[in-house]
Amino acid sequence: MCGIVGIVSTEPANQQIYDSLLLLQHRGQDSTGIATANGSMFHMHKARGQVREAFRTRDMRSLLGNMGVGHVRYVTKGDAENERESQPFYVNAPYGIILVHNGNLTNTRELTEDLFRIDRRHMNSTSDTEMLVNVLATELEGQISGRELTPDQVFAAVSQVHERVEGSYATIAMIAGHGLLAFRDPWGIRPLILGRRTAAGGDRDEWIVASESLVLEAGEYEVVRDVAPGEAVYITLEGELYSQQCARSPRLVPCSFEYVYLARPDSIMNGISVYEARLRLGDRLADTVARYAPAGDVDVVMPIPDSSRPAAMNVAQKLGVEYREGFYKNRYVGRTFIMPGQAQRKRSVRQKLNAMSTEFRGKNVLIIDDSIVRGTTSKEIVDMARHAGANKVTFASAAPPVRYPHVYGINMPSRKELVASGRSISEIATLLGADNLIYQTVDDMKSAILEGQSTISDLEMSCFTGEYITGTVTDEYLAWVEKTQLS
Amino acid sequence: MCGIVGIVSTEPANQQIYDSLLLLQHRGQDSTGIATANGSMFHMHKARGQVREAFRTRDMRSLLGNMGVGHVRYVTKGDAENERESQPFYVNAPYGIILVHNGNLTNTRELTEDLFRIDRRHMNSTSDTEMLVNVLATELEGQISGRELTPDQVFAAVSQVHERVEGSYATIAMIAGHGLLAFRDPWGIRPLILGRRTAAGGDRDEWIVASESLVLEAGEYEVVRDVAPGEAVYITLEGELYSQQCARSPRLVPCSFEYVYLARPDSIMNGISVYEARLRLGDRLADTVARYAPAGDVDVVMPIPDSSRPAAMNVAQKLGVEYREGFYKNRYVGRTFIMPGQAQRKRSVRQKLNAMSTEFRGKNVLIIDDSIVRGTTSKEIVDMARHAGANKVTFASAAPPVRYPHVYGINMPSRKELVASGRSISEIATLLGADNLIYQTVDDMKSAILEGQSTISDLEMSCFTGEYITGTVTDEYLAWVEKTQLS
Amino acid sequence: MCGIVGIVSTEPANQQIYDSLLLLQHRGQDSTGIATANGSMFHMHKARGQVREAFRTRDMRSLLGNMGVGHVRYVTKGDAENERESQPFYVNAPYGIILVHNGNLTNTRELTEDLFRIDRRHMNSTSDTEMLVNVLATELEGQISGRELTPDQVFAAVSQVHERVEGSYATIAMIAGHGLLAFRDPWGIRPLILGRRTAAGGDRDEWIVASESLVLEAGEYEVVRDVAPGEAVYITLEGELYSQQCARSPRLVPCSFEYVYLARPDSIMNGISVYEARLRLGDRLADTVARYAPAGDVDVVMPIPDSSRPAAMNVAQKLGVEYREGFYKNRYVGRTFIMPGQAQRKRSVRQKLNAMSTEFRGKNVLIIDDSIVRGTTSKEIVDMARHAGANKVTFASAAPPVRYPHVYGINMPSRKELVASGRSISEIATLLGADNLIYQTVDDMKSAILEGQSTISDLEMSCFTGEYITGTVTDEYLAWVEKTQLS
Amino acid sequence: MCGIVGIVSTEPANQQIYDSLLLLQHRGQDSTGIATANGSMFHMHKARGQVREAFRTRDMRSLLGNMGVGHVRYVTKGDAENERESQPFYVNAPYGIILVHNGNLTNTRELTEDLFRIDRRHMNSTSDTEMLVNVLATELEGQISGRELTPDQVFAAVSQVHERVEGSYATIAMIAGHGLLAFRDPWGIRPLILGRRTAAGGDRDEWIVASESLVLEAGEYEVVRDVAPGEAVYITLEGELYSQQCARSPRLVPCSFEYVYLARPDSIMNGISVYEARLRLGDRLADTVARYAPAGDVDVVMPIPDSSRPAAMNVAQKLGVEYREGFYKNRYVGRTFIMPGQAQRKRSVRQKLNAMSTEFRGKNVLIIDDSIVRGTTSKEIVDMARHAGANKVTFASAAPPVRYPHVYGINMPSRKELVASGRSISEIATLLGADNLIYQTVDDMKSAILEGQSTISDLEMSCFTGEYITGTVTDEYLAWVEKTQLS
Repeated sequence: MCGIVGIVSTEPANQQIYDSLLLLQHRGQDSTGIATANGSMFHMHKARGQVREAFRTRDMRSLLGNMGVGHVRYVTKGDAENERESQPFYVNAPYGIILVHNGNLTNTRELTEDLFRIDRRHMNSTSDTEMLVNVLATELEGQISGRELTPDQVFAAVSQVHERVEGSYATIAMIAGHGLLAFRDPWGIRPLILGRRTAAGGDRDEWIVASESLVLEAGEYEVVRDVAPGEAVYITLEGELYSQQCARSPRLVPCSFEYVYLARPDSIMNGISVYEARLRLGDRLADTVARYAPAGDVDVVMPIPDSSRPAAMNVAQKLGVEYREGFYKNRYVGRTFIMPGQAQRKRSVRQKLNAMSTEFRGKNVLIIDDSIVRGTTSKEIVDMARHAGANKVTFASAAPPVRYPHVYGINMPSRKELVASGRSISEIATLLGADNLIYQTVDDMKSAILEGQSTISDLEMSCFTGEYITGTVTDEYLAWVEKTQLS
Repeated sequence: MCGIVGIVSTEPANQQIYDSLLLLQHRGQDSTGIATANGSMFHMHKARGQVREAFRTRDMRSLLGNMGVGHVRYVTKGDAENERESQPFYVNAPYGIILVHNGNLTNTRELTEDLFRIDRRHMNSTSDTEMLVNVLATELEGQISGRELTPDQVFAAVSQVHERVEGSYATIAMIAGHGLLAFRDPWGIRPLILGRRTAAGGDRDEWIVASESLVLEAGEYEVVRDVAPGEAVYITLEGELYSQQCARSPRLVPCSFEYVYLARPDSIMNGISVYEARLRLGDRLADTVARYAPAGDVDVVMPIPDSSRPAAMNVAQKLGVEYREGFYKNRYVGRTFIMPGQAQRKRSVRQKLNAMSTEFRGKNVLIIDDSIVRGTTSKEIVDMARHAGANKVTFASAAPPVRYPHVYGINMPSRKELVASGRSISEIATLLGADNLIYQTVDDMKSAILEGQSTISDLEMSCFTGEYITGTVTDEYLAWVEKTQLS
Repeated sequence: MCGIVGIVSTEPANQQIYDSLLLLQHRGQDSTGIATANGSMFHMHKARGQVREAFRTRDMRSLLGNMGVGHVRYVTKGDAENERESQPFYVNAPYGIILVHNGNLTNTRELTEDLFRIDRRHMNSTSDTEMLVNVLATELEGQISGRELTPDQVFAAVSQVHERVEGSYATIAMIAGHGLLAFRDPWGIRPLILGRRTAAGGDRDEWIVASESLVLEAGEYEVVRDVAPGEAVYITLEGELYSQQCARSPRLVPCSFEYVYLARPDSIMNGISVYEARLRLGDRLADTVARYAPAGDVDVVMPIPDSSRPAAMNVAQKLGVEYREGFYKNRYVGRTFIMPGQAQRKRSVRQKLNAMSTEFRGKNVLIIDDSIVRGTTSKEIVDMARHAGANKVTFASAAPPVRYPHVYGINMPSRKELVASGRSISEIATLLGADNLIYQTVDDMKSAILEGQSTISDLEMSCFTGEYITGTVTDEYLAWVEKTQLS
Repeated sequence: MCGIVGIVSTEPANQQIYDSLLLLQHRGQDSTGIATANGSMFHMHKARGQVREAFRTRDMRSLLGNMGVGHVRYVTKGDAENERESQPFYVNAPYGIILVHNGNLTNTRELTEDLFRIDRRHMNSTSDTEMLVNVLATELEGQISGRELTPDQVFAAVSQVHERVEGSYATIAMIAGHGLLAFRDPWGIRPLILGRRTAAGGDRDEWIVASESLVLEAGEYEVVRDVAPGEAVYITLEGELYSQQCARSPRLVPCSFEYVYLARPDSIMNGISVYEARLRLGDRLADTVARYAPAGDVDVVMPIPDSSRPAAMNVAQKLGVEYREGFYKNRYVGRTFIMPGQAQRKRSVRQKLNAMSTEFRGKNVLIIDDSIVRGTTSKEIVDMARHAGANKVTFASAAPPVRYPHVYGINMPSRKELVASGRSISEIATLLGADNLIYQTVDDMKSAILEGQSTISDLEMSCFTGEYITGTVTDEYLAWVEKTQLS
């Protein structure tokens, strides 16, 4: 999970990118990077931690220039490798390119081989982003003939990138001395949206490209459009925008998990309001609850703060049952220090959530979560509800059972850690300790998200269905991924 | 605003105190301090920032010993002074004493003079906590006769402290080589609660004293009782507990603002559930709303997340109007970096809150906040609601108008910055831009908080009423405070 | 080994103290501390490492005020304890006292007991300096009667300190709001010198007290005099100086090792030029060499840079043999990093010294060192000389054999690590691999140092003679020291 | 001024490079960088300050692999640019190359243009080293045809580099996955020496390339030879060495300043012992002194520690006058902190040197320095000598007058700051305040350095003669350099 932003402004870009990354912080909290271009000179700072922890005044002061890109990142693997895998990535020929990327490439094994043997390019990490910037660099080099760099050459290079890489990739790159390039994979799996505002002087446009629309809104940019699947957008340092469809058969199949959990509710993504999609997920879920939960089993509906609130509110409204907030969420998270001679203690969900017994005592509660992945948190929540005095505990997920790995840029555990993998719903209910467990159906999820628009007819839902949109995601591939990346 | 904790354990105290401070983080986020005692050797670390930022592994490793105290702090004044005013404070005679304090002394001018001239004690800051530890040290020195330190001597010293200092002071101190002492001012203005658990070996007790009960619950301590106003509790290194009333005429008059805003909802304070008090504040407020808001003016009730949720839920329930969460709270807060040649830009509340237009469009909304202090945030919120499409905006405060400074340990601006100071309610409504503005009455607030118990009959409510419980808080004093401390 | 300085100025003291500590850096390189007083407010910063490493701009900016003290320190024991043993030390009653100390107390076992039992003062380290400041504080407290602090009260307190502590102690202390106090033990074992200059305004005096005279010279202070053994000097914030002899039977018996090795050559200490004393040590040594080294055994005389240069130059001159610098000293010292799975490698003297073979090839060399302690370095040097082609290697020490521990503030290993302990000179020669080994005699050392003046007739030479000036240094004490402090 | 080292070992290279850089610290103290290669993965850390300050344990731990390069650097320009100009530099195609460089390119204006326009390579600094690695990368790319990288291709690329760049460049580069490449400009202006040792296992060779021979000696490598001017040496990861002359008309014309001042005396450079060259500079200088200093004008000869000691010793010996060390050098250098509202104070040479008056009083002294550049230090030294009581002060420089800029990698001020630029010797003497001033002649310097060998007949002596070996160093170029680089 990552959030990205790129800006071509007429004022210093550093604070704008910093502010944008704060708004994308929910997409990744483990490392932060910003790069800017001052004329043809690049400046870059990346560090561990959230935006606020990673940037000090002197770091910001070094980030000169009016063009820039930023990245927030969620990491899965061990400490040692983190820093060298942090984005952005830089290559120094041709021109100098700095790139950020949200997504995941699924043919990295082939790319590694080709980049080393054929392109003689050095990979100094195992990051697919470093591969992506090197593929782009190689293809751009292959397009250049004369002295100038034309938008057509840039777009031809992106077309070649689409041929060589596979997977999800919402991408923003700076080309030193020239401009900012943004493009999205041919299925538009990960989001990318384009905004414009008039520069203070009034004589030219300023541009922004970001993962989510709320970044545009906060920066007072008007939304131009989502970058289309397969499309490339190229903005010169002077603020001229060029765009072109660079994929052979693009088709918009956005990731369903953005609507279920990842995106901020106040974003509009691919024309669909995330908040309203979540309200509709609640409406649909209410119907299923009504079908499977005996009358009288639900005195009160409760969300798990913060992400399931919209769904829970609408479940309550449609069922005509009272909505109550019974869980209090502690915002301050610390660490367990390992003292010499001590073993690691388990941190439980109780440090993050507390149940207000007033709301539970003697009641039949329906707890709504956005989704259930490992199930460990859900189990603890059910337990807390009982401990707080609940009579009956029904648990409902606004998303269908998660049964397969997500390979397009959302971090999930391997199959054997997914509670729904290879288990029936009643087996899961028993495991969670719930009196009743209700899941959204795949069809309901899909129709809830897509309702009210006609441009999108399909969603990337592989973690629920096991059907992967890119052909090469085979069982052998999944096994390799689980072995190398999810450990 | 501060949070404090003290522990006499049979295991290392550092992580327990760290975990406790995380749970008290809402009481102060500007600096953090922990001190431990290993035999008669003290170890201390204090630093700026939240708990998580202030402590690294090596800091924790240096905090050896089974007894300890911790402190989180909210600061008002300039940077330069912060660090030297951080708690805990240490004096090295008699015995070595380390002390933490939640509250505010109101006779610091007299104390400064006396400590310098009579006690010849050095104040190396302007902190009232440094004064408190020195008064305690002086009085303890005056009590010692033989070689041993008896609980009676300790209690006699606390009695003297009560005579010399005035204001609010929930206090925890370690006496090197002897034990842990906790005491509360004769009005019990600030909270302090005592807990006990059986040590792992089963042969002795472990003790905790903390600002809020949830800290006890999380550490699996049973609640013994709130420390009584004026009472002192002394626990030896061996876990023996002694306690004694040390004030001449104690009377429990706890601070109302703890229930209105400061305390965590899952705490029980002076026998009153904070969460339930807030629900009741909602009930009472609903009645006032019903009286003053014309029928049809309220289609929907909305809280300002997170603190006004309980009140808002009950306002909605009692009015029979739908409860909706229309504001989304951004959890990630950054900074504005001042670049050379740039002016500071204003950070608006919009970076913290976003209004979901789906919930506002065409509706008459009733927005509930826990209280209104400066009014600047409320004004922006009203504006956001209108911008999101609200038809009519009614604003209600679960607390009465804040018209006077708070001098007992809650940071508030000076009178001229309080929006309700010297203004009628309709003037305030105009200023906030609300169609209607409704405040809880002082009587309703008091009865809502005190309902269902009989031990407490009075609350410290001076910021609402202007009546200060300690006699020396005169107009001259308030003017001095505003001049020296609130600038 | 330590260096100390104190200043009462009319301008900010921080940079003056910083510059002074740089000039005393040779006396201690492991930790650095500066404290200043701004009115009655103390400011302090102490950190590991040399002066240059320990102070950043923001540390210096925090050190406000025109009075201050500084300290550089050489440590012997493990890492963990270093920081809490760093000087200066602070006590907050009476008045607030901050103290620095060069020397070593030899009755710490008794002091620990008394301070705890009788004075009820908290020692938060095992530092004898913390004991010293607490003894001073207790005695000062005992002297105070009225409201003012008079010089007589201060001197009476110092007299009491002389009664209670034993050992070597050149001491500088700040008394908050009052002034600066400096005193020296009744034997004047460690150095302390007083200087004065006229303030920029011309209307009052500025004062400095420091370990060595070159600090005065560099700060353009004129030398007033060495602080006398047992004397106390008290300078008020206004620059008034008072002084008084506070010991019952003072007698100046300065440490011989200052002249042999520790002090900078450009200092004049107790009226004796260190540089000239070292030249005379060379003269005396030349006579002994002439007696014991067969004619023709010495073609050339070489110093070990930097400390033995003066002695070597005069040995050469008096013997009429050429003086050559055959060893090159590398100034840049690094570390060995322990990588996981690696063992510590031995760092040899070869990283610090290199022998120029041009100077050694085929020659009979006489190598002069200031003293021989463990002998390990000497052995390597002899080996290097042979390796560089030397024909015959004679080794001479400008000081006598070091056979006993030094307990008055110079760090030395325990007896079993001293190469000369329990060995004859020819046994030592064999161990070092030298063809001939020549030591200065105790009488020659004494007369070389004392020549040309008449005020001093005795030197502290216990590490050469085993005769300790303070009566309580018994075999039992030495065994205890070696066990607890020299491991 | 820089020092460089490269290693192909069978054990971790990090500590070996760290230790080597410590030995080269005299060549640059402002920034330090190390890069290693672990298989084809590069690791790099560079930071401000001396080796010891720049590397912490965790930095060292990240430097994995058995091949590595290191660099120490002396900087001239402002703070802001320092960090991005630090070496090593990295390019990621072809293969991945990391390069360090000692020297200075004199056609950077042409290179900047060509690299941007023709090679489309991004320069992210103004460093000539970044240009050098990009030229090497471009030329290497041009040589590759098949899949493998052969030594012949590497050498062909170096030949092209020699065609494109001009100036001085002793260079070491790592080619990821392949090996280590070292080469020297066609005049061999800056030094580079090759060493070999047998790996612990005994089955293969380990190699080192470094600026000075003492690094080889300390690492127990045997000297193979100096890298020849124009030659390239290529060592594979497996330890196979290939070498080839890559320049069209190489001629060894090493920099005279290495012998005069820069190199460590215990190095042998281009077959000439630096120490012995300095002794011979003393011999020659003695003759000139004898000619120009009246008999009786010199009672004693004194060096300025540390660099002029060998020359001074031989001047003394040849003149038959006593050699004395009258100046004491303070090793500890600090900073002046600018406090708010304070102006920068001047740091004088007195903080670094102190004159022992015993050695000066009433004597006619001859002070020897290695060279005179700005003259400010010399003037202060003459003044100190007089202040210390010298009767007559004769000052002699072991090098001729420095009258022209040095453009081949030794940092020197612009012409107007050179005291000898445009002044006669007697004018300089007056300026320094010396009674007599004697310079080495250019011919004597040359013959002193070159004596006793026959392979070298010319030296790079442009700063003394104004004759630059590379044709393009014109007056226009010197003016540009002084304007852009020496300000």
